[in-house]
Amino acid sequence: MSDDRRGLVLDGHTRPEPEKIESLGLLGTTTVYEAQGQVGYLGTDIRPIFAGAACAGSAVTVAVPPGDNLMIHVAIELCQPGDVLVVAPQTPSKVGYVGDLIATALQARQVAGLVIDAGCRDISVIEEMGFPIWSRYVSSFGPIKESLGNVNIPIAIEGVEIAPGDAVVADQDGVVVVTMARVDEVLRQARARAANEEDKRARYAAGELSLDVNDMRGLLDRMGLRRELAGGETGER
Amino acid sequence: MSDDRRGLVLDGHTRPEPEKIESLGLLGTTTVYEAQGQVGYLGTDIRPIFAGAACAGSAVTVAVPPGDNLMIHVAIELCQPGDVLVVAPQTPSKVGYVGDLIATALQARQVAGLVIDAGCRDISVIEEMGFPIWSRYVSSFGPIKESLGNVNIPIAIEGVEIAPGDAVVADQDGVVVVTMARVDEVLRQARARAANEEDKRARYAAGELSLDVNDMRGLLDRMGLRRELAGGETGER
Amino acid sequence: MSDDRRGLVLDGHTRPEPEKIESLGLLGTTTVYEAQGQVGYLGTDIRPIFAGAACAGSAVTVAVPPGDNLMIHVAIELCQPGDVLVVAPQTPSKVGYVGDLIATALQARQVAGLVIDAGCRDISVIEEMGFPIWSRYVSSFGPIKESLGNVNIPIAIEGVEIAPGDAVVADQDGVVVVTMARVDEVLRQARARAANEEDKRARYAAGELSLDVNDMRGLLDRMGLRRELAGGETGER
Amino acid sequence: MSDDRRGLVLDGHTRPEPEKIESLGLLGTTTVYEAQGQVGYLGTDIRPIFAGAACAGSAVTVAVPPGDNLMIHVAIELCQPGDVLVVAPQTPSKVGYVGDLIATALQARQVAGLVIDAGCRDISVIEEMGFPIWSRYVSSFGPIKESLGNVNIPIAIEGVEIAPGDAVVADQDGVVVVTMARVDEVLRQARARAANEEDKRARYAAGELSLDVNDMRGLLDRMGLRRELAGGETGER
Amino acid sequence: MSDDRRGLVLDGHTRPEPEKIESLGLLGTTTVYEAQGQVGYLGTDIRPIFAGAACAGSAVTVAVPPGDNLMIHVAIELCQPGDVLVVAPQTPSKVGYVGDLIATALQARQVAGLVIDAGCRDISVIEEMGFPIWSRYVSSFGPIKESLGNVNIPIAIEGVEIAPGDAVVADQDGVVVVTMARVDEVLRQARARAANEEDKRARYAAGELSLDVNDMRGLLDRMGLRRELAGGETGER
Amino acid sequence: MSDDRRGLVLDGHTRPEPEKIESLGLLGTTTVYEAQGQVGYLGTDIRPIFAGAACAGSAVTVAVPPGDNLMIHVAIELCQPGDVLVVAPQTPSKVGYVGDLIATALQARQVAGLVIDAGCRDISVIEEMGFPIWSRYVSSFGPIKESLGNVNIPIAIEGVEIAPGDAVVADQDGVVVVTMARVDEVLRQARARAANEEDKRARYAAGELSLDVNDMRGLLDRMGLRRELAGGETGER
Repeated sequence: MSDDRRGLVLDGHTRPEPEKIESLGLLGTTTVYEAQGQVGYLGTDIRPIFAGAACAGSAVTVAVPPGDNLMIHVAIELCQPGDVLVVAPQTPSKVGYVGDLIATALQARQVAGLVIDAGCRDISVIEEMGFPIWSRYVSSFGPIKESLGNVNIPIAIEGVEIAPGDAVVADQDGVVVVTMARVDEVLRQARARAANEEDKRARYAAGELSLDVNDMRGLLDRMGLRRELAGGETGER
Repeated sequence: MSDDRRGLVLDGHTRPEPEKIESLGLLGTTTVYEAQGQVGYLGTDIRPIFAGAACAGSAVTVAVPPGDNLMIHVAIELCQPGDVLVVAPQTPSKVGYVGDLIATALQARQVAGLVIDAGCRDISVIEEMGFPIWSRYVSSFGPIKESLGNVNIPIAIEGVEIAPGDAVVADQDGVVVVTMARVDEVLRQARARAANEEDKRARYAAGELSLDVNDMRGLLDRMGLRRELAGGETGER
Repeated sequence: MSDDRRGLVLDGHTRPEPEKIESLGLLGTTTVYEAQGQVGYLGTDIRPIFAGAACAGSAVTVAVPPGDNLMIHVAIELCQPGDVLVVAPQTPSKVGYVGDLIATALQARQVAGLVIDAGCRDISVIEEMGFPIWSRYVSSFGPIKESLGNVNIPIAIEGVEIAPGDAVVADQDGVVVVTMARVDEVLRQARARAANEEDKRARYAAGELSLDVNDMRGLLDRMGLRRELAGGETGER
Repeated sequence: MSDDRRGLVLDGHTRPEPEKIESLGLLGTTTVYEAQGQVGYLGTDIRPIFAGAACAGSAVTVAVPPGDNLMIHVAIELCQPGDVLVVAPQTPSKVGYVGDLIATALQARQVAGLVIDAGCRDISVIEEMGFPIWSRYVSSFGPIKESLGNVNIPIAIEGVEIAPGDAVVADQDGVVVVTMARVDEVLRQARARAANEEDKRARYAAGELSLDVNDMRGLLDRMGLRRELAGGETGER
Repeated sequence: MSDDRRGLVLDGHTRPEPEKIESLGLLGTTTVYEAQGQVGYLGTDIRPIFAGAACAGSAVTVAVPPGDNLMIHVAIELCQPGDVLVVAPQTPSKVGYVGDLIATALQARQVAGLVIDAGCRDISVIEEMGFPIWSRYVSSFGPIKESLGNVNIPIAIEGVEIAPGDAVVADQDGVVVVTMARVDEVLRQARARAANEEDKRARYAAGELSLDVNDMRGLLDRMGLRRELAGGETGER
Repeated sequence: MSDDRRGLVLDGHTRPEPEKIESLGLLGTTTVYEAQGQVGYLGTDIRPIFAGAACAGSAVTVAVPPGDNLMIHVAIELCQPGDVLVVAPQTPSKVGYVGDLIATALQARQVAGLVIDAGCRDISVIEEMGFPIWSRYVSSFGPIKESLGNVNIPIAIEGVEIAPGDAVVADQDGVVVVTMARVDEVLRQARARAANEEDKRARYAAGELSLDVNDMRGLLDRMGLRRELAGGETGER
């Protein structure tokens, strides 16, 4: 962030309608990611800290200085029920910025979950609490509380920009972000995709081949696919 | 693969006898790996997508272009009950080539499992289905369906060559491949090894020391092992 | 280690009182790490091999040559009930030095757990046995038994020195080591910290803000934190 | 990008004044990064392919599908003298999208350099040509030319958004991006910073201590820094 | 390798004609890799230890146990002028198996270079000697000399199988391997490719666009590429 | 470090005799590492920032908080000619703690070099100055100056403990540390090793085989090494 933005906290941002976010959550990370044109995925290294974790909510964003979680405490006050706290360090870090105390405070405010591009600790207790977290590391490395960052200024994780109010969908596949302005369109596309997949799933389960269900045979022939019987070659090995 | 092999699909390869593969599966990845002379292991980064996943089967191999899963659809048609689909990208990739739809199609054909040296997605649904997958990444990154690769041409993962018909054994330790020609020999060795380990396990559980069970004391003495009482040194710390 | 120490095994080291180690274990990795001044954590890559693994004990240390687990067998004989075996390779290694047989032998001696800065295998069986292990890799790669290392000479993992008799606390957050001389002091600090956290947890759960509980508002004001209403800026996006 | 943006090429974007970009280039990556408030750095893994590489220019952005460099050819036509081509794959990739032929085409158009969050090849020839490139990998893995992406739609690398017309400064420290709207302000700040550093450098070179030059002693005392003579402790080791 | 192959050394393998290998070397790694159908590249992590390193030769292969370089000494005796020694550890390793002494011995036998999927050390001296090496690591970690491996049994690096007598081409882009049986065909294809590239390079250098030289415009139109003027959108940022 | 040690600076530690350190430096990292029993190497990821960098000196150690270089400024005052500043972050970090200004200050005090288990920046300028640095990253990510750490308390990098006054030898192979108490012994061993290697180098260069120079043939025979002529098998491929 620029110097003049350091220590800035923005409140009062708009949030998408909760039922729309809930619907996105039910559709799941990968369906939403595909429905919005294969963008918004936070990558393969942001993982849930326990099996079965899933949530969806509206982003409150925090940029934290190296190893310093002071601004997370500032952000808690701005969280509303149904929000997801999304935390990015200003430089790559393995520090465990978040533990069971912060999780307790967030859960008390009915925050839906937390995403952090750094470490998280006390994960046994947090799993017992049932508060879902996605992080890059599990890490006991401890934070300090000495420097300012920002709350609700756009941040970025793995090349994806996240602004306050963006929809966040997270499950076992990872985390995907939908820009607030696109929530309606993406929800529509995701529902269409899910319906289409439901249909395909039934046909596949009944034994139909995807080559037929998706009419791929003609394309493959035109591309020059050749089918041969395994013979001399593999026999020769 | 060479240019003249692009878009080639081989069918009709030989498979090992199913009961032999099943026996290898019961012996487990590490025992089989050791029994065949410490080769064939696909390394520490190919991991099961859920706890408890285990399978054994005969390999159907697929080489896929970057981010393109068209050839996986082609390969499904060639899969028989008890096969394991093994997929390698032509260049390293984090794309989630395989999701719940492909898993459904494979399960409908009674395929035993899938191994992929890239990403896999929709893992919650796939775990519910109970279809076991081993992959390098969990990843929502989505594939396209536009280019040709190969089916049932030998591929390689982490320096291990895998040919169609090779036996694949996968569990919580990872994945090991047994060349078709060696299945009988490896099965014999693995059974001998397992019997020997069973005996040792009982003796260790009863409190016997491995130094005695394996007659290691003489060797250690000859190598010059010295035993001393912790004294000045650690006390001085 | 220096040449003159190769093949040296030290026995008879002092151990902390078991009830103190047990108390540290109940307090947990992260609390102990914080209580001793944010040191002693073995890093984010030493992970439990199954969910729920937790243990605490007194260290028996082993330095192993590349891919060789002979010295682990030597060390078993020196283990007493309540010890934790801590293994470091002399060069970085992905070999699975430890499997279910060694786990069986350790469990028979009532060893509390094992920590290894390398690989571990047969993890399904070991999970069934309920013997807790923390390792850098799950790996079938197999060891040999041909060369000497050391037992109960200080080793180091991720920059943390571990001497025989040091207290080892391990759970889902990872592993932390407490130098034997500091066990009393750290236990006292950790209990104080836990009590303080218990109090905070209750207040957070009741809805109090951490900014108030920790009196952070004055500090933030002095540092120049500015709070603004989201307006022109985010609207302009 | 969203589906409706796939295959979109935007031309005619505004560019900063060349002499301002040149000035930023002379100040260097790290000075510019600091001057704009410690943002815009593309991270530690985007490295120059040869020693001494340095450039500055105005960004032309390309989003490429997995392993496909067709859109880079499309982008070349839009490049003007003094531009820097910045390429991001839609999913992480180790493919060498760029080789000496593309470098030749870019050099013929007096493009200042190229930044790619993937692989680059033919680097000996490119070094001889003196065309500077920053990439995540050196890689012979070859691209295909079959799918559409985008040109001059904003992309992101390591959490930094890059829009067409943004200033790009690259040297041995890596790559930093300055949003077009901030070029004037950042240039002013960077010059001030450089002047201040020049002054400090002279004083340091003359033997003055940074503790004095920066008036840090009072701060350290207030923070409670203690200075002691090495004695018992290190002597005891 | 299988148990019955441990400790096996094969001599007397066939080698390709030296002038053909030399020709491949002049064409370079990436051209050869492309000419043989985008296979045989040892990946982005096998790097030259000094700038300017380049060589081509016929493979002598060595499989080494963890941290043990005894078999490299065995292999030296089998090397002939123009060979390239290719070394793979049986398990992933960071040990520096090769230093200036082995380099001296190989240079004395007029070996063309060395490729190792592990570590190499004494690199300053080796650079002075001008003996080219490609390795995964620079590493002082030292080897032992205690266990058997194999010489001239096929090995694999990053999924590429390498047999004795295969052609190895290595330069700043990395290392590519050509199966002995394909040397003639690949040389022919590589020369054709180089000629074609030479022609394109001249046209690009003269300012022709690759879109025209490669007749890509029609394809792009059929795929639906849209070109628009940057307007509202980027201006709105 | 423990809480009561935070903010502690120790001065007046003993240093080895400069000519001994100089001698170690001439022998080189790998020779010294081997001579002291294959310990003390800081691993494969601590690399010189420019080709040809080499130095040897007596350690001044600094432990720095996350992203904070205040204590490096404190340490400069304690450096004497011939020292090497060794810096470890308290948690893993990609921040560029050190740039050309700090390098200038150190060079003015005739410090021999700097080793940092984190990032370094302004590397072009530092190379021009000829001040040698070894770091884990090249990184523009910028530090702050707000928190206390320690100077001249033992630190650890990659499992190697470094105390003030220890000898540090660094070159193109990386960095090795010799405990002060062992300097004499290691120097003696290293000289013996170098002499022995010099003799072997001459014999290898003259064409003698290492199998003969090291009398390995008998050992290999006893281990059961078999030599066969490549025949059916490789011919069959």
